[in-house]
This record gives sequence, structure tokens and C-alpha cells, in this order.
Amino acid sequence: MTPKIEAFLKDAEKDSPFLVVDLDVVEDRYKRLNSAFSEGHIYYAMKANPAKPILERLNQLGSRFDAASLGEIMQCLETGVDPKRISFGNTLKKKKDIKAAYDLGVDLFAFDSEDELDKIAEAAPGSRVYCRILVNRHGAGASWPLSRKFGCSSAMAHELLMQAKAKGLVPFGVSFHVGSQQLDPAHWAKAISDVATLFDALGEGGIQLQMINIGGGFPARYQEDIPSLEEFVDYIKEHMTASFGEKWPEIYMEPGRYIVAEAGVLQSEVVCVSIKDFAEEIRWVYLDVGKFGGLAETIDESIVYQMVTEYDDQEMGPVIVAGPTCDSCDTLYERTYFQLPLALKTGDKINILSTGAYTTMYASQGFNGFEPPKEYFI
Amino acid sequence: MTPKIEAFLKDAEKDSPFLVVDLDVVEDRYKRLNSAFSEGHIYYAMKANPAKPILERLNQLGSRFDAASLGEIMQCLETGVDPKRISFGNTLKKKKDIKAAYDLGVDLFAFDSEDELDKIAEAAPGSRVYCRILVNRHGAGASWPLSRKFGCSSAMAHELLMQAKAKGLVPFGVSFHVGSQQLDPAHWAKAISDVATLFDALGEGGIQLQMINIGGGFPARYQEDIPSLEEFVDYIKEHMTASFGEKWPEIYMEPGRYIVAEAGVLQSEVVCVSIKDFAEEIRWVYLDVGKFGGLAETIDESIVYQMVTEYDDQEMGPVIVAGPTCDSCDTLYERTYFQLPLALKTGDKINILSTGAYTTMYASQGFNGFEPPKEYFI
Repeated sequence: MTPKIEAFLKDAEKDSPFLVVDLDVVEDRYKRLNSAFSEGHIYYAMKANPAKPILERLNQLGSRFDAASLGEIMQCLETGVDPKRISFGNTLKKKKDIKAAYDLGVDLFAFDSEDELDKIAEAAPGSRVYCRILVNRHGAGASWPLSRKFGCSSAMAHELLMQAKAKGLVPFGVSFHVGSQQLDPAHWAKAISDVATLFDALGEGGIQLQMINIGGGFPARYQEDIPSLEEFVDYIKEHMTASFGEKWPEIYMEPGRYIVAEAGVLQSEVVCVSIKDFAEEIRWVYLDVGKFGGLAETIDESIVYQMVTEYDDQEMGPVIVAGPTCDSCDTLYERTYFQLPLALKTGDKINILSTGAYTTMYASQGFNGFEPPKEYFI
Repeated sequence: MTPKIEAFLKDAEKDSPFLVVDLDVVEDRYKRLNSAFSEGHIYYAMKANPAKPILERLNQLGSRFDAASLGEIMQCLETGVDPKRISFGNTLKKKKDIKAAYDLGVDLFAFDSEDELDKIAEAAPGSRVYCRILVNRHGAGASWPLSRKFGCSSAMAHELLMQAKAKGLVPFGVSFHVGSQQLDPAHWAKAISDVATLFDALGEGGIQLQMINIGGGFPARYQEDIPSLEEFVDYIKEHMTASFGEKWPEIYMEPGRYIVAEAGVLQSEVVCVSIKDFAEEIRWVYLDVGKFGGLAETIDESIVYQMVTEYDDQEMGPVIVAGPTCDSCDTLYERTYFQLPLALKTGDKINILSTGAYTTMYASQGFNGFEPPKEYFI
């Protein structure tokens, strides 16, 4: 928790749940990645948190933007982002949305299928396209895997990038995604090598690709320590050289979680502490925010957040942590061995760390009559 | 699909995704349950769909309401519901929300822990309370289980209902929930018997409970045929007599899905149809609505919706069905053997049946820049 956030929480007597984001942390993470990987271009994956103050700060710093929908593109443009700095990165787009984006000046589109390529060729003629390939299809090493749904085989990518040229598009590059919150850098090495092979094969056919998009995946710190960003970057650069030699293509990257997760703290209140029977020792701790209030990444207990209370120097005990809705599925940690102070009681505040990314935008519009958490940007 | 919905879909050239709800179906289901189970009182579980036109219609019909939050209570009151016909049925409530509800005239509260009981005693003195017991804790028979998070043991319920009296509250009854979309009526029998035992034991201690709340759980029709409502009701009545003899306590029930699910059709559009490699036969069909646009009950592929297209008389083939967001988790059916017509292509409409309950309110407020589906009530 940054001093700025601490001061905000101390001053503020605000109804929970709410998210507070320290924009200086966003700036710090952007600069740190930009400095460590100055050869690359950062396309902020705005789905992680598309709030206007974040987009504004990143736009001032020179970031580019990875948008998942026409809606996100509009959010960028309203912030003053140059459409030439936006990548329409979702491989799933309605044709009318492709056309609208194209008419607004966007000229870079992702695809991973013939169907998508045809839509882009018709709705955004002459645009640059990049093909997403399927890597690490079982999501190994990633806490929030993101592999099977997107991307095609390298053989298909080869064919489709040739088709792209024939259809009047610019076959610009290849992308992949190793899985979000990826803790094992080795997954980048394999993917980079696959992309280099594809570059060579297409080069022989007269198609010179210009860009490799290494996706997102750089982790944020939750409960466990993680390797430093610099370790990931050094490792990736090493493998770029191993695969491409000294002359690299343009490198695009799409960090989201890394840029904003650690900038945010979600404040929650304990609604109830209970046991199910006098003979049971494990307590249930119910918070006023759960899976449908923004903590969707607790599905399958994938992301295990760090929760801070005022009693953390006191005796701890095992708990099951759940959200406030009348839905059994809204249980956060049941298999994960989670501990909270024995002194914790109804009405106490709990600060959930590293919640700047992939939280508030997941929140349901009002399931069980609960509004999404408010957001403050400081 | 009702003729009214068919006509609406034929007339309407509306941007998908959207939900259309036939209020006459809502009325029909309410009346059917009210007639089959005239001994009971219906508390509509408004979390299933709290849209104002539904609340209005049900209020006109004489329904009572099960609210999960102060927000839902406010929605009821704005519709003109008498606060004495509202049950604050969530066992997880902030003390200030209990007080606000009490001040608004609500006098019936659920609890399942000492902590909750204390809050109610302080914030809503003299109110009627009912204790939720834990039954069917592994959710057997239910497609959307709802058992472990809520309720306490019968032994604890006994103790807490005695405490309730000592704390100046009215120990009014006992509730349970057999799991939503419950296909096996036997789960009610066991629970009713447990409740009767508790009634007897408390009666011996001088506490005469007045109400059994048999929860929700009555199923809606999705892909599979289900037993008729009347079968469930007859079975439950038989077991009420077996457990309570001829003199039954008041019976409350909390249907949600049964009342509204079959009244709704969610119209979606195919965004993309693809394969991952030339050698693969299974197609991926991507829709413009997915887990974060309202189809949250496809988590773990729990609810398998029926999807209707214009080609349903033509040759079918296996598909993986996924939503439109850049999130791998937003895959609807991958393990479930799902078939859609081979002729299905990008831009085609798909009507998803029985989507009146537990859909739109789950929708995220804008993940990936996608707005929640619009809703139409006819």
C-alpha cells in the first residue's frame, strides 16, 4: 500500500466496497517496463482497467492501447488517444465494429481465423493485420490461463497471412499470449521461436512480416513473491536474439495487469463472521464484495489476493472467505488455505491489495441489488 | 418461444445481445404455482430478475417478495410493494441495512449465525426471524448448487432460535434451500423432516415456530425435460403431512427461476465461426454474449441452454461455444457435447431460450467495453 493510498484510506470515511487507484504507481510501472524494454512498444491492455484517469495518464506518457471492442476504442478516443496508436486486439469483432473502427482511423487489427480475416478485408481494406497463434494451450504456469480460446496453429497462420496479402491487407505480424499472470518465462521462449519459424517460412514465400506481439502476461504481486520484471524482460530479449539474431522485428507488448494491478486497493467490510456448527472450528468470513462485485478472478480460486486488516500482528486462524450475495458460487476461498486474524469481526475493514486490474470492470451491474464498487483515482 | 416473443423478434431489428421477456409467461407460472400449492405463500426471489415490469406484474397478482439486499427492498418499495410482504432473505446483511429495512417497515429477516442474530436484535427489535439450516450440503441433484455457503446445523439453529426469543425477537420459523434447478424432489423430503424435528424440539422448550420456508429450487426447462411442477408440489405436500401431520405451519416458498426463466429469450449474434487448425473438425462458434454478458450460469457448464437458429432442421455438427471477450474463461461449452448447424455463419442470430432468470443481472457493467444486454418486456 502506498503512502498516498494509506493517507486516502485514513482520511476517507467512505461506504465500502470501493477501489482506490494510485496513478503514480501506474506511471511507475509504465516507465519501468518502458525503460527495461525500450526496444518494444507498450500497448496497454485496457480491459484490465479502462478508467479514464488511467488512460489519460498513460496517454500522456506515450503509451499505445490494446482495445478489445469498439466501446474501448471510443473510450480511448474520448481520452484523446491518436487512433493510429490503437490496436483492435480482440480476434472476435463484428464486421460493423471493424468498419466503425476503421472509419475512426484505426488501422491495426488482430485475427486468428479465415472468417475474421474476411471481415477485416471487407470492412477495413488495406489495414495492417496480425495473426494470433496458439501457444501454451493448457495455460501452464499462468494463474489466469488464456490459451485455448484464442489463436490458431502456425500452419494455419502461415496460410492466413498469405491470404491476407491476397485480400489486399498488410500482413504485419504475429501475436501470442502465454497466459495472464504468467510466472514461468520459459513460455515466451518457445513462442518466440515458433514466431521466428513462421517469419522465415513466410519470408521464403515473399511475405516480410514486421512485428512480433508478445502479448501480456507479466505478473503482479499478490500473495506470493514473483520474479522481477527485469528478469522476464532479459530472458525475452535473450530469446529474441536466439530466434531472430541481431535484427529484430518491431516488438509490441500488451501489459494490463502488470501496469495497474498493484496500483489499486479494494476496501471491503466484514458483513458477518460465523461457524456452521458449534463443533466446527473453521470460520466463514463474509465480505461486502465477492465474485459478482469485482473479484471474478477468484473463480477456481485462481488469483489469491492479499487481505490486510488492523489485526495482522495478532493470532491467525483458518477461514473460508465468501462474498455477500445469495449465491453459493460467490465463495472466494474454500480450497485455498486462507488465514485471517481471530479478532476479526463484523464491521471491520479489510483492504484487498493489488486489485487495480481485472476487478471493477468484471463487477455485475447489480446482482442481488448490489451496485458495483465505486472507484477513486488519486 | 411464445407467439408474442416470436412476433417481437420478427418485427424487431434490434442490436443484439438483448433479452425479451413475455410477462404473460411470468403470470402463468405464478398462477400455476399458486394454484398447485395454494397452502403456501410465494415470495418471489427477485434476484432471479428484479426488473420493474416483472415486480409490477407479480405485485398485482398478490405475490410477496424475497429480497437479497436493501437495494432490492428499495426496488420493491418503488414498485409499490407493501413492506410487510417483503422478506429480507439474505443471511448476510450489514447492520445499517437491517436498520434501514426495519425503518421502512420490513419485519421479517433471515439469519443463520449468532452474529447475524445479534445485528437483527439490535437494528430491528421485535422482528420476526427465521433460521436457515444447512441441507444437501454437496448440492446433489441441483444444476446450480446452493448449499454449503448458507445455513447452520440443526443443533445450532435450535440454540439460536432460543436466543432469538431471549433477545426480544420473534422466533418465527426455519428455512432451507435444496439447491437451484433441483431435479430430485427427494431433497425436500429430508429437509422437511429435519425442520419438523426442530419444530418439535423447540416446542418442548416452549417455543412455537409458525413457518417453514421451503426455499426455491423448482426447475425451469433448459435442454432436458424436467418433472412437472405438480409432481414436485404433490411430493412436498405428501412429506409435509408425513412430517407435520394434518396441521401444517405456514409454508413460504421462494421461487425465482421457475417464475421467470422460461419467460425470457436472449437474442445473440454469431461473431465468428472458426477452426484452430485445418486438421481439426470441431468448430468454435463465438457469440456476442458470454459469461460476462449474462450467461454466468455456464460457469462449470452448469446450465446448458437451448440455442435456436434458423437452420435447426439441417445437418448439425459438434462445436465449442464461447463469448466475445478477450478472456479464455469466457468459454461457455467445451466439455459439454454441444451441436449447432453446420450452416451457421457469422452474423446469424441465435435465440437462447429460458434466459429470463439469472442472466442480465449477472452481466458485468462493461468488461471489455461491452454493455450489458438490453431488456424488453412485452
